Amino acid sequence: MFDYEEQLDQYLETIEEMIREKRYAELRDMLLPMEPADIALLLEESGEEKMPILYRLLPKELAAEVFVELESDSQEMLIRGFSNTELKEVLDELYLDDAVDIVEEMPASVVIRILERATPEMRKSINEILKYPEDSTGSIMNTEFLSLKKDMTVSDAFKRIRRVGGEMETISILYVTDPTRHLLGVLSVRDLLLAEEEDLIEEIMDPNVVAINTMEDKEDAAQALSKYDFVAMPVVDMEERLVGIVTVDDAMDVIEEETTEDFEKMAAMLPSDKPYLRTGVCETWGARLPWLMVLMLSATFTGMILNHYENALAACLVLNAYIPMLSGTGGNSGTQASVAVIRALSLDEVNFSDILQVLWKELRVSFLCGVCLGGANFIKMLLVDRLLLGNAAVTLPVCAVVCLTIMFVVIFAKCVGCSLPILAEKIGLDPAVMASPFITTIVDATSLLIYFTFASHLLGI
Amino acid sequence: MFDYEEQLDQYLETIEEMIREKRYAELRDMLLPMEPADIALLLEESGEEKMPILYRLLPKELAAEVFVELESDSQEMLIRGFSNTELKEVLDELYLDDAVDIVEEMPASVVIRILERATPEMRKSINEILKYPEDSTGSIMNTEFLSLKKDMTVSDAFKRIRRVGGEMETISILYVTDPTRHLLGVLSVRDLLLAEEEDLIEEIMDPNVVAINTMEDKEDAAQALSKYDFVAMPVVDMEERLVGIVTVDDAMDVIEEETTEDFEKMAAMLPSDKPYLRTGVCETWGARLPWLMVLMLSATFTGMILNHYENALAACLVLNAYIPMLSGTGGNSGTQASVAVIRALSLDEVNFSDILQVLWKELRVSFLCGVCLGGANFIKMLLVDRLLLGNAAVTLPVCAVVCLTIMFVVIFAKCVGCSLPILAEKIGLDPAVMASPFITTIVDATSLLIYFTFASHLLGI
Repeated sequence: MFDYEEQLDQYLETIEEMIREKRYAELRDMLLPMEPADIALLLEESGEEKMPILYRLLPKELAAEVFVELESDSQEMLIRGFSNTELKEVLDELYLDDAVDIVEEMPASVVIRILERATPEMRKSINEILKYPEDSTGSIMNTEFLSLKKDMTVSDAFKRIRRVGGEMETISILYVTDPTRHLLGVLSVRDLLLAEEEDLIEEIMDPNVVAINTMEDKEDAAQALSKYDFVAMPVVDMEERLVGIVTVDDAMDVIEEETTEDFEKMAAMLPSDKPYLRTGVCETWGARLPWLMVLMLSATFTGMILNHYENALAACLVLNAYIPMLSGTGGNSGTQASVAVIRALSLDEVNFSDILQVLWKELRVSFLCGVCLGGANFIKMLLVDRLLLGNAAVTLPVCAVVCLTIMFVVIFAKCVGCSLPILAEKIGLDPAVMASPFITTIVDATSLLIYFTFASHLLGI
Repeated sequence: MFDYEEQLDQYLETIEEMIREKRYAELRDMLLPMEPADIALLLEESGEEKMPILYRLLPKELAAEVFVELESDSQEMLIRGFSNTELKEVLDELYLDDAVDIVEEMPASVVIRILERATPEMRKSINEILKYPEDSTGSIMNTEFLSLKKDMTVSDAFKRIRRVGGEMETISILYVTDPTRHLLGVLSVRDLLLAEEEDLIEEIMDPNVVAINTMEDKEDAAQALSKYDFVAMPVVDMEERLVGIVTVDDAMDVIEEETTEDFEKMAAMLPSDKPYLRTGVCETWGARLPWLMVLMLSATFTGMILNHYENALAACLVLNAYIPMLSGTGGNSGTQASVAVIRALSLDEVNFSDILQVLWKELRVSFLCGVCLGGANFIKMLLVDRLLLGNAAVTLPVCAVVCLTIMFVVIFAKCVGCSLPILAEKIGLDPAVMASPFITTIVDATSLLIYFTFASHLLGI
């Protein structure tokens, strides 16, 4: 495992030196013991020129493993440079689900070349998986898995594993099916090892199998794998026939990807599936501008409210100084509630039927927070603004207006913040979009209305 | 797998009915085929009274699996009700790492009872693991694993697996050690199955093992498992001796927990390790108030700036209407950059040496965003505010001031937003704390300074 900053640069220098001095055998020996993910990192960091040289030093099987770990633009570059034989060699070594991932990322011209070189079965399987919707479990499953029959003995099963197990992604979990491919049970390789040779599979399998449908969201599949601590999970079609498996490494990738998307959506960006430094300036710009524009233009309402109360403000200009603090505190309070609820929704801890319980909780929390913040601000205004900074305009009624507003804004912000994501999910929107920037904009306008209502009643302006 | 809302209520009703009518055998048969995680959910939702009844219906081994999946307050309640024999039965069935997790969560009185009932070896192992710092890999590792010797044959290895494999958490990955417990190699159960009976372990093992140290951050261990697609990873002590393993299910838990913490920190909350609805009102209040208070009080600076320019504002009150839009847009721009960089940091895509590359990228992105937002706002101010709403105070110079400010604020916000998290990580702080609320506060004050600087130069106020 690389200690990123320290070792990487050192390796890159060594590689450059070895290539310059054509010490290829030595270079190959240096790469061989490394993990595929680390070799992929070295290839990418070594630059476009050296990447094909390094890649061609690797033995066939390792080369395929490294290939899978590369970013899609590096994969594309390598494929474009491959001879037909080289391409075929890589494809033969790939697991099916990895091949599909690669095909999905490549431009059409490269896809055609890949499909031409793939074996007929692989081509058929790739096409089948590509038919599933982008976010479905079907799109990430692997159709190469090992299935057993219930009337096999344990020693039959071992024979089957020895015969075909080498090509499978996992053999730790084995599924038992009937002749129509319906799932009958599941067992682990450990169960096989601990059983007697002549035991029947039927006797040692667990008939209670948790399966997921091809059309279910891949995020649900990932959550289920995590919840049940499975290393693999069977995928069934609409007729409940076993068609594939999802493995825990795919689940981790899905979770990482979805978490990044959640972070991006919650920070008002359109989701991108590339690492930060590999996304071009224009692409990043395109992902960030839309929401900034929408939120900027929606601030027109806030401006209109301020214009409406222009005279009241002119009469008591000191009120103006507290507006940023009020909208900031409101925005932060709302963000806290919305982020807590969005995360709880995505971990399945909360759902629509809990909305009243959530609201009741936030109401009490926000009341406590509001009272504390209002009180603290009252003291601060009197001690700092009035006494220390000597601002005579900070009178008791002004303090009262500001502090009452804080209390009400915090309560309003938290209630809106906790309920909007739940409502969004109920009507089929992504709750993550209801995070901080969206709520801040609503809270900004509302806090001004609350502020001026209190001001006109208590200060008579 | 539960479809949460639909099935859960139905099950709970059935359970209540069965308990009322004392149909325990039937109830037990209903629970038996379920996954432990689902049974745990049913137990918790069925309420404090029914939980012990349901729990006692489960056979010993399943009961332990369900116990692990319960929240710690439910575990505590059950333990308090256990007889000593019951407690011992549960402890005997637990995997060591799960037992440690439970001990860590319990109050002292319960811990003493647990340690009294545990076998001497388990007590020793629990105490050993408890010595590791909270966030270290040592604290989540399992010290029960299967190790092989290099001079064993494949059939010796199978004998060993059959003898002790039943008590191990995983046997898919096996480690080879020398007599001083130093790691020599790794192999999968698949390698064993595909090898010949008389092959030596030494011949089929992979001598390149990626291991992690007990003292390394558990998040690094989790990231490594995810990066290398491992199902387990060996943990070594300072003398490079194998002392435990971390498995992929623990890694997924760590990632989920750390992600939740990141979300919480980024929304200005103190991290909590309990699910949303299980955190009490006072606890939630305590987690949320501190940052709200700090951020509210730090808005004093914004207020001071507004007070300072009170006369300028009074002279041109229309400027005031654009302040919320400016600080909102600045805050959102900064949030986008900071969240993108924080996520890239936590995925190891970016580190300190990339800071200039990140800044250069954000500079270009923010320039593009700034120009677009400034331009759009210019058009909107002229068309909507001046022509449509007839606000004569919106003159060309005023438009120019607002739009120039937008451009500079967006650029400033994005540069601060992207560099603060990197700098925070460099000096050992958590970058997640540098997210939106913190940056919003800085940007709020700065945007006012930029605004009034342009205003005083262009409008002569």
